[in-house]
Formats: sequence, C-alpha cells, structure tokens
Amino acid sequence: MSATIETILARRSIREYTEAPVGKEDINTILECGRWAPSGLNNQPWKFIVIQNEETIKRLAECTHYSKIVLQAKVLIAVYLDQETMYHHDKDVLAIGASIQNMLLACTDLELGAVWLGEILKKSEQVKAILEVPDTFELMAVLAIGHPVKKERSSTRKELAETTFHEKYDEKWTGEN
Amino acid sequence: MSATIETILARRSIREYTEAPVGKEDINTILECGRWAPSGLNNQPWKFIVIQNEETIKRLAECTHYSKIVLQAKVLIAVYLDQETMYHHDKDVLAIGASIQNMLLACTDLELGAVWLGEILKKSEQVKAILEVPDTFELMAVLAIGHPVKKERSSTRKELAETTFHEKYDEKWTGEN
Repeated sequence: MSATIETILARRSIREYTEAPVGKEDINTILECGRWAPSGLNNQPWKFIVIQNEETIKRLAECTHYSKIVLQAKVLIAVYLDQETMYHHDKDVLAIGASIQNMLLACTDLELGAVWLGEILKKSEQVKAILEVPDTFELMAVLAIGHPVKKERSSTRKELAETTFHEKYDEKWTGEN
Repeated sequence: MSATIETILARRSIREYTEAPVGKEDINTILECGRWAPSGLNNQPWKFIVIQNEETIKRLAECTHYSKIVLQAKVLIAVYLDQETMYHHDKDVLAIGASIQNMLLACTDLELGAVWLGEILKKSEQVKAILEVPDTFELMAVLAIGHPVKKERSSTRKELAETTFHEKYDEKWTGEN
C-alpha cells in the first residue's frame, strides 16, 4: 500500500495529548497542507487562527463540553469560512472540509495527534468574541493538536456496499470484478 | 518531507486523461479512502455512485460546461449528501469535503489523475434523473478520474500571512520563531 493511502486509513481522532510542546515548524507544515487544499475557482475561502496561549485555550475550553480535550491541546487551530471570499456557500464549506482533512492527515504524518471539534460551533459567538474575529467569519471547526498519548485506537465505518452504488442508485457496488 | 505531506502538496487538478482504463482495485482503494474520512458523530453522511458506463458518462457530460473533461474520464464518482443520515447540514458538508479530499489524495498516490467538478451542481436535477437517486440525495460534487496525460501542472495559493492569524485576528501568523 502506498504511504498516503496508509495514512488516510490509519488516521484516528486523538483526544489525549502529552505535555510535549508542538514545534512551530510542525505548525507551519500543518498550515501549509491546509492551504494547498482545492477550492472552487481556487478562492481559498478559509481563514485559520492558531492558538497557543494558555489563557486563550482556557477560555476556549469553556465554550465546549469537550473542555478536557481542549485543555490538554498544545495548539488549537480555529478554522473559519470568510464570507468575504465566499462564492457558493456549500462549495466553500466542502473546500474547508478538504482543507481540514489535509491538516489532520499532516498531523498523522508528523506523528501528532489531532481531533476535529464540531460541537464548539454551538458557542460560535463566544469563540468569535474571544478571538476577536470580524462578523464575516463563520466558525467551521476547531482542531485540537498535541503529541498523542500512546494507545490503541479503533474506529468503524459502514461497509462500502451500504454507501456505494454502481452506475445508478438501483445497483450496489460490490467491489468485485 | 514525509510522503503524505508530499502528496498533499503535490496534488493538482488533472483534466486530461489517456485511454487506459482504471482498474477496479484502484476504484476500491479510492472508495475505501473516501469512507475512512472523519464525520460528526461518525454519521458518514456520504453516498457514492461509481459511473463507468460510456453512455451514462455521455449523458452526464451534457450536464456541465466541462463536458470535455467528463467525456475523457474513465470513471466518475458522484458524491452525494444523504439527507436521511444528516444531522447538521454544514458539518455534514464539511465531512463530505474531507471524504472527497481523501479520494483525490488516493488518486494522486495511485498515480491517477482526478478533478473535483462543482459547476455540474447547477444541473443537479438532471444528474439526479440520470442516476435515478432518491430525493433525499443532495449532489455535492462529481469526481472525474483517469490516467493522467503527462505534463507540468502548476497552481498557486495565497501566502499563509494572508489567511492565518496568531492567537487573535489582530495578529498575523508569520511562521517565524
């Protein structure tokens, strides 16, 4: 199996981090991968806010039920859709999903642990006030990143036959020749 | 640089394909990568339709200005959001963006060429009729895939300092220590 495919299949959400700091070089690599995602008309609708300040992390932890994860993280990346560069809401949201996935895969490749936090969107207004972002910024996700506490992590997915069709909806994809 | 990061940075939209067929094993690998994307509550809101039938490809080519690309593709993957498994529209769309990116990266890793088609969404109703999908399916993208015609492909991105901030919106990320 090729290395990238292996990384894609091996990536897991990692919610526990050690005390080790995350180097600036690694953060730059993660952001670099985020910005090289594809987007419609190459409009790059994302904005990233990198948070390392402990006080800010504490305040953000108060915006989610997953405060334990946030408090352990050494870096947070708040990912925003900038409505000023938006051209089509759904397509821009898709592009941001691609950008987030690039960053998560980069973390896996760098042997960092990361998790995509979505529940914090319930407190978008509070997050916006903490990060002092303009009203044109729409919160899409917060990534929590750190060095992973080592343990086995498993996950599951539906079988391909449940989600995939061949030629038309009436024929399931079997994956066989 | 690690292999996955290299693939992420090297991936380009590829719009010209040779006559060589794409093997079923490769298609399975691409789908496998698509289904291992993360999603909120692990709800896996995506549905994929794999299209290889030349007649269907011709009919789909009529749904887009990019018919030349579609007609050359050996495989199309129509990616749908299934509103029946949806729990939060934007979060589900983000997850589908992650799933699409996994598939595009898998293509790069397999030395296949692929492009993410979004303009075809204007003709979602026509596509829905061709693929006979239920009304609960919302078209997100069509991926065109084939063996790439070899040539140099370049692309550009905004500088990190244009899209990235440190701690708060008022401080730009410099990437320096």
